[in-house]
Amino acid sequence: MTTAYKRIAGQSVERLAALSDGIFAFAMTLLVLDLRVPAIEAVHNEHDLWHGLAALSPRLFMYMMSFLTLGIFWVGQQTQLNHLDRSDRSLSWIHIAFLFFVTITPFSTALLAEFTAYRIALLAYWLNIFCLGFALYLSWGCATRLGLVKDDIAPEVPAAVCRRIVIAQALYAFGALLCIISTHWSIAFIVAVQLYYAVAPRWPR
Amino acid sequence: MTTAYKRIAGQSVERLAALSDGIFAFAMTLLVLDLRVPAIEAVHNEHDLWHGLAALSPRLFMYMMSFLTLGIFWVGQQTQLNHLDRSDRSLSWIHIAFLFFVTITPFSTALLAEFTAYRIALLAYWLNIFCLGFALYLSWGCATRLGLVKDDIAPEVPAAVCRRIVIAQALYAFGALLCIISTHWSIAFIVAVQLYYAVAPRWPR
Amino acid sequence: MTTAYKRIAGQSVERLAALSDGIFAFAMTLLVLDLRVPAIEAVHNEHDLWHGLAALSPRLFMYMMSFLTLGIFWVGQQTQLNHLDRSDRSLSWIHIAFLFFVTITPFSTALLAEFTAYRIALLAYWLNIFCLGFALYLSWGCATRLGLVKDDIAPEVPAAVCRRIVIAQALYAFGALLCIISTHWSIAFIVAVQLYYAVAPRWPR
Amino acid sequence: MTTAYKRIAGQSVERLAALSDGIFAFAMTLLVLDLRVPAIEAVHNEHDLWHGLAALSPRLFMYMMSFLTLGIFWVGQQTQLNHLDRSDRSLSWIHIAFLFFVTITPFSTALLAEFTAYRIALLAYWLNIFCLGFALYLSWGCATRLGLVKDDIAPEVPAAVCRRIVIAQALYAFGALLCIISTHWSIAFIVAVQLYYAVAPRWPR
Repeated sequence: MTTAYKRIAGQSVERLAALSDGIFAFAMTLLVLDLRVPAIEAVHNEHDLWHGLAALSPRLFMYMMSFLTLGIFWVGQQTQLNHLDRSDRSLSWIHIAFLFFVTITPFSTALLAEFTAYRIALLAYWLNIFCLGFALYLSWGCATRLGLVKDDIAPEVPAAVCRRIVIAQALYAFGALLCIISTHWSIAFIVAVQLYYAVAPRWPR
Repeated sequence: MTTAYKRIAGQSVERLAALSDGIFAFAMTLLVLDLRVPAIEAVHNEHDLWHGLAALSPRLFMYMMSFLTLGIFWVGQQTQLNHLDRSDRSLSWIHIAFLFFVTITPFSTALLAEFTAYRIALLAYWLNIFCLGFALYLSWGCATRLGLVKDDIAPEVPAAVCRRIVIAQALYAFGALLCIISTHWSIAFIVAVQLYYAVAPRWPR
Repeated sequence: MTTAYKRIAGQSVERLAALSDGIFAFAMTLLVLDLRVPAIEAVHNEHDLWHGLAALSPRLFMYMMSFLTLGIFWVGQQTQLNHLDRSDRSLSWIHIAFLFFVTITPFSTALLAEFTAYRIALLAYWLNIFCLGFALYLSWGCATRLGLVKDDIAPEVPAAVCRRIVIAQALYAFGALLCIISTHWSIAFIVAVQLYYAVAPRWPR
Repeated sequence: MTTAYKRIAGQSVERLAALSDGIFAFAMTLLVLDLRVPAIEAVHNEHDLWHGLAALSPRLFMYMMSFLTLGIFWVGQQTQLNHLDRSDRSLSWIHIAFLFFVTITPFSTALLAEFTAYRIALLAYWLNIFCLGFALYLSWGCATRLGLVKDDIAPEVPAAVCRRIVIAQALYAFGALLCIISTHWSIAFIVAVQLYYAVAPRWPR
């Protein structure tokens, strides 16, 4: 691979954004495949149907959590990419790695939802979240170092992007640590953090 | 999450549109996975194949309904987003919630198609439609309040967008209420409303 | 639905193109889900694996046909949309109907591939192709009538677009008619037409 | 198909890029469907869950390989398309063929991962990679011959693009040839080449 090729490869932020949107769209909707209508043979009245739907509620909740987590990282990634002037081969590969962890998220969410009392499930979930955050952190570092960031960026933006990732990851790590007491404390804490990141900005403007 | 970060996060309407198109594409095509070719062992002549295909027709109809419903909300969402100058963190999250209900629509359509005589299935379907409309209503309120709407917008547009949502939702709610008489009346009414929204604009220009 | 709303709804060609690309991407790749690696228990040597793969070749061929057909209509649709200045509510709905038939294409291709000797399978396939062509024809008529076409279009373009659809559909209809003799003649003729539309433009420039 | 139509068909690089991103997104995430959470009945303690997850690791590795391979070709394709001014009917069809091989890649990767000791699996995988590279080579040849490349392109770009494809394909072919000694040597060599193409550009700038 010659230097000339490396300089010209993977420069389109638009293509990176479009691939990301496609992969996010797929990953976010993956767990909906597990929501199946109750079997018609098992339902004889409204009461049965109600129970059939109630039995689906853990899966629906799990799906919502996976959607929420990926929504948070989608917003995080687009905030970075919006500030880039162009991409670069290295940056593209960091985001391809990021997208890999995006597609793993429905699996690790389902794992955690199925095995709420197991520390391994919790740590697998946390490791996934950590890799997502780490990839975004690397991506921003790479973008600023290689001068891919737009010139007209507000001066407080680079620090704000980094701080956001570090604080969020510190909270997730603290949540994961709570599994020393109980995995249920961990899950409650992590869900609370995620709801805060999704809902919080709606009020305090 | 600092104020600086909140101001810069999730501003791209293009990314929001692209994620939406990906998720709509996935959700609209989800029920086609249930259309399976008749088993070759069960088919001995043209007559058998005809019956095998006829047996698929309820699924095909259900798929068309889901496609139609999502088509209506896709047009509704893009009409809003076309008038926005930029997005915003709050608006992004309203649309992520909207997209969640988009992905649930194939499930609730399939539920209704399977249990046409059950009020719970009808109410679940209506609740889904209501959440879709409510999210779009919130989105427009948020966009106008935060000044995200384009400046060169025609003066009658904001009222037209709101009126459209309120009238459609009133019709859907009336349709849902008809289940006091019979769920079949409800379904017939709701299907008629949806066909009107899809087909109507073709003639009266 | 007020007149004001109808005028502003569904105007973005870009959104229509993006939804189409998402749905085409999904539909074109749908049949690859049926390509499953041979079971490891049934394979004891290279010979077994070769036979296992050979047994998949009809599915691979079917997948190629579905990919090819959808490729043809993707090129056809984008050629139209490239010439549009803006979209419109009616046009959006014609394309949503078009996309519905796009998503049905893998099913009707699989049906034909499974039941090559059955006229009903052939007619179902032909009906699908016809609906695709008819929607594109309607779309172009709608676009020219409503003045959605770009101003700087070359004068021969509108006629060329129509002629292309009519000739292709005439060929497909003739192919379908050949099933009076034998469905295999029909299939051979339709495949030949499709290969011509895909490959032909590569040489005669 | 008249000459007029051929001149106007399939000219949008943006549409081609968008379809490609959709198909890549789908193909890259296809193998994640095989990652299923261990059955809850089989897990009684942390140890069981650990073993259940460890049993998934070959599938996870296979998924990573497929993601990596497709990432390489995604970067390769976008590098080409970024330099094009417009597309063309012939070029569109070369890329549709390219995308076909993209969607086959998860299958051939899974085949190789399941049958690591079988030469047929290795050759099927190599043939897939070869077709991907060959389509990109054809695409670049077609684009330069038909004058679709942007005018302001740096003079060393065309040669760099070709050299990159030829060198990579020579390495893959050498890797495939190693199966004369052992398929495991082949796999190790090909994986090493792919890791180099993904990771290498991160350091030597």
